[in-house]
Amino acid sequence: MAASADQARAVGIDIGGTKMLGVVVDATDPTAVIAEARLATPVGAAALVDGIAELVEVLDPGGSGPVGLGIPGLIDGGDVFRFGANLPGVIDLAVGEVVGTRLGRPVAADNDATCATYAEFRGGAGAGWSDGILLTLGTGIGGGIVVGGLVRHGANGFAGEPGHMLIDPSGPPCPCGRRGCWERYASGSGLGRLGRDAALAGRLDGVVDLAGGEPEGVRGEHVIAAVRAGDHDASLVLDEFVWWVAAGIANLVDLLDPGVVVLGGGVIEAEDVLLPRIEGAVPDQVLARGHRPVVPIVAAHFGERAGAIGAAVLALETAGRPPTQGT
Amino acid sequence: MAASADQARAVGIDIGGTKMLGVVVDATDPTAVIAEARLATPVGAAALVDGIAELVEVLDPGGSGPVGLGIPGLIDGGDVFRFGANLPGVIDLAVGEVVGTRLGRPVAADNDATCATYAEFRGGAGAGWSDGILLTLGTGIGGGIVVGGLVRHGANGFAGEPGHMLIDPSGPPCPCGRRGCWERYASGSGLGRLGRDAALAGRLDGVVDLAGGEPEGVRGEHVIAAVRAGDHDASLVLDEFVWWVAAGIANLVDLLDPGVVVLGGGVIEAEDVLLPRIEGAVPDQVLARGHRPVVPIVAAHFGERAGAIGAAVLALETAGRPPTQGT
Repeated sequence: MAASADQARAVGIDIGGTKMLGVVVDATDPTAVIAEARLATPVGAAALVDGIAELVEVLDPGGSGPVGLGIPGLIDGGDVFRFGANLPGVIDLAVGEVVGTRLGRPVAADNDATCATYAEFRGGAGAGWSDGILLTLGTGIGGGIVVGGLVRHGANGFAGEPGHMLIDPSGPPCPCGRRGCWERYASGSGLGRLGRDAALAGRLDGVVDLAGGEPEGVRGEHVIAAVRAGDHDASLVLDEFVWWVAAGIANLVDLLDPGVVVLGGGVIEAEDVLLPRIEGAVPDQVLARGHRPVVPIVAAHFGERAGAIGAAVLALETAGRPPTQGT
Repeated sequence: MAASADQARAVGIDIGGTKMLGVVVDATDPTAVIAEARLATPVGAAALVDGIAELVEVLDPGGSGPVGLGIPGLIDGGDVFRFGANLPGVIDLAVGEVVGTRLGRPVAADNDATCATYAEFRGGAGAGWSDGILLTLGTGIGGGIVVGGLVRHGANGFAGEPGHMLIDPSGPPCPCGRRGCWERYASGSGLGRLGRDAALAGRLDGVVDLAGGEPEGVRGEHVIAAVRAGDHDASLVLDEFVWWVAAGIANLVDLLDPGVVVLGGGVIEAEDVLLPRIEGAVPDQVLARGHRPVVPIVAAHFGERAGAIGAAVLALETAGRPPTQGT
């Protein structure tokens, strides 16, 4: 029956600063992806809504199932996008309502890292934990918080922004207006900045070669590649980066006492060199080390699809259509 | 009837580093104090248990109602005190079980600031809020977290330690082993340190006079007194202190999006000069200011009794004796 088949599907879209990644999932197992597509993120509110509608039509032509949107920024409890540094020109957009009317489908919206948290704690690396934290280390740092078995949003829907935790009052300015935010150090961009600083100080010749010969061209992936090739100087820069990652994670562990910390985002594609170092560095900075269990730190399971899958999970739950069996 | 009258009472004890404050409350309104007593905190585990038993007997002689203990440190889910910097010599003490056996009463234990959170969110400054944070600014900084209407403990019982959030990697060492923890700046001790630093730099002559003539003698209360007397230099030091308080609160607001922030602890006895400054400083540091509601910041209602009252609330709830009506 066409209608019931249709209702058993959902679309999830993860809207990034540069690209949108969409998936179609089956309601019986929303973590299994049926179809996938990408589109460049259009600039401005009207073009963004057009782009979302286009991507949904590509993914699930003629469908009427629920659509979930993961958006980089602050989304309030009424699915209104308030503000996000990576979506310039889009402010106070009632994105759930506008896209819902446009598509004629139920639409739900949430923060992108919060969506990734739905996916990872439903059927990924955080499955089975009732208290945990997800962190996405990418261009910036996003976060999601699970307390008592539920993803939490706080009083206004804005919870889960650890990236702008002030961690060094004499640190570099952040686009958010503060100085020394955690994501200036512990994101992918932060690793690149630490690498460039070391390169400009003449300490990273091997990495500069990988980056094409200019210290200013050093990015995080060059540091990682040099570490994998056994470059000692690059390894020191990576240790510095890991210290900052661990400092912020320890702050969060002291505050929330999570059962697990799930790390996602582009940086964690270098799981092989990063995860053992981070696991080693966090316990040293946690309060009362030696008197408490060591918190497991694990890599996200769904990789770059986590946000889109989680948006689909959100759509299925918010639209009041719990996963069905045997359809 | 004697037995039912007894069951309708509970004892709560807030154990500080130097003194213990105990209260007796009625189960019908655990936030109303019937009796109160104090005792110096004995040093060492055995003496501490003796002291708790003595205080309970003073407060509620011959009673058999439940007893709650608020303890400065990490308490796990089995009422075992793991570690606390202010109770040297007491480690891994099964305080709930040991005191319970000793008294022949039901005993429950929790972190002291978490107990204050029970009191303030039950019937004090946080009443009616389902998401909020309590911070005690005293010798150090304690915390309690309310999410979805419940005080939260994390995976192991240790949640709510914002005082050791690293906020300045080049800051002074902390007894916890890190450097630049928030409580080095934003506690009562932190205010004293900022005052002494300014006094030693020759910037606080009026405050030094209040402190007896020696810069090393400057404490937080001298700075506050000078501010109240209109001392401009002291006001600048207080502004610096408030900046640090606001920096940490903004970190917590970004992460948890609380509906309210309740401030307690000795420092907040200077509510008149502090609270307006803190309320003014926090919004400047919160992510996406202007796109979200300003979080109310309020002083704790129960003052120094909050921890003891909250311990009694905990005792009543944990002992499975909900507040009764009309006894």
